[in-house]
Amino acid sequence: MSDERIWTAAVLVIGDEILSGRTQDKNIAQIATWLDVQGIRLREVRVVPDIEDEIVDALNAVRARYDYVFTTGGIGPTHDDITVDAVAKALGVGVIVHPEARAILERYYSGRGIELTEARLRMARTPDGAELIPNRMSGAPGIRIGNLFVMAGVPHITAGMLDALTGQLEGGAPLIAHTIGAWSPESEVADLLRQGEKDHPGVVIGSYPFFRDGKVGANFVIRSTSAAAVAACVAMLTAGLEAAGYAVTDGGI
Amino acid sequence: MSDERIWTAAVLVIGDEILSGRTQDKNIAQIATWLDVQGIRLREVRVVPDIEDEIVDALNAVRARYDYVFTTGGIGPTHDDITVDAVAKALGVGVIVHPEARAILERYYSGRGIELTEARLRMARTPDGAELIPNRMSGAPGIRIGNLFVMAGVPHITAGMLDALTGQLEGGAPLIAHTIGAWSPESEVADLLRQGEKDHPGVVIGSYPFFRDGKVGANFVIRSTSAAAVAACVAMLTAGLEAAGYAVTDGGI
Repeated sequence: MSDERIWTAAVLVIGDEILSGRTQDKNIAQIATWLDVQGIRLREVRVVPDIEDEIVDALNAVRARYDYVFTTGGIGPTHDDITVDAVAKALGVGVIVHPEARAILERYYSGRGIELTEARLRMARTPDGAELIPNRMSGAPGIRIGNLFVMAGVPHITAGMLDALTGQLEGGAPLIAHTIGAWSPESEVADLLRQGEKDHPGVVIGSYPFFRDGKVGANFVIRSTSAAAVAACVAMLTAGLEAAGYAVTDGGI
Repeated sequence: MSDERIWTAAVLVIGDEILSGRTQDKNIAQIATWLDVQGIRLREVRVVPDIEDEIVDALNAVRARYDYVFTTGGIGPTHDDITVDAVAKALGVGVIVHPEARAILERYYSGRGIELTEARLRMARTPDGAELIPNRMSGAPGIRIGNLFVMAGVPHITAGMLDALTGQLEGGAPLIAHTIGAWSPESEVADLLRQGEKDHPGVVIGSYPFFRDGKVGANFVIRSTSAAAVAACVAMLTAGLEAAGYAVTDGGI
């Protein structure tokens, strides 16, 4: 499976609220999980402040390096929402009021008897040449231009946008993951894990220790694009753990 | 206050488990909050996979740019724990078994009647020239070398390490934050927020909309190193919101 093309992605979180610790990010995990299913590997995340030059620099660093780049945050109606301008600057294109986005907002607000103010109309601005990503939650759409996907900061809105993109992006074979767990200190099984990776090329084993109910244990996640390789490695690790006297819980503890 | 030196930091999260979506990161928010209190601004976060070259490149990019860099993850006993090697490579120094770290682990494990295996001894490896950051939770220490701080991936262990570092790092004036909330669509008050920032130099206003109980509202976070500037801006925004017919909740909704 190692000759297969691997599709990659980066996430750029735009948000002073994450850097200040005010808000705990939830978009990274949800985009990562979604990408897994699309057969795309999340390879890097950057979190940058609401400063245009920082966003532009980060965008230019990652958009050349990965197949897809997702941004989250900064597409609302207020003064600190500068993502569209930064994306346009990074791509060297202008910013327009997108006719379709404007029509969506007009429908959304007039249906609720709310005026489409200048501030709200900001949410119809896109880089020139962009397509829209539908947002059933709040009217204001996401934006797709080139390999960039501009998503909301609010997690449930981004969830809706991801849903709209499901199956739309070319990817490779999805990574298959199988988790097993044991009440073993991870330091006891370090050699076994190392051997497991060595014996099964293309398989990556993650080791995640925990401390629970006064006892230490660890979950082991075995990943590969080959279901057969995952199964073989799981079997080898399970046998090794049991031989060392540790009961194995399939699916993890 | 704008002439004051601003101390900056970056966080480098080393972890396939975050990029796969398996684990929701909790270290970014806790380090960010802790840095706020130390008078240090978190300016960038990167999440990179457990691949040595990726870690080295990211370390070199951020350590030159910010006053302090915190890494999380990859310092346990297993094969996927490669942070120490990557830090040493980035700094161009060797890796040693740190005598003090070794002594800590010997005490920790012998006190529990557990053997200090080769795998466990991996946790005493540090870049040459490093100091240790105490870890009361699990024995294995964190590492401080130059402006790099190497912390655990497990959040409660990192919390203990941060505690040990409290007051040890030179910082500037802490950023003061005051939150107010109103049941106003943020698009209704966009102009007021913009004016608030314009009228109060050095103040940054964040706007965080929410949808709750069938109604839209927003919290506004007003930040500055000057308590007087924060108070003046809060007063202006409160008056503006009330004049527009929105009751203001001090402390946020």
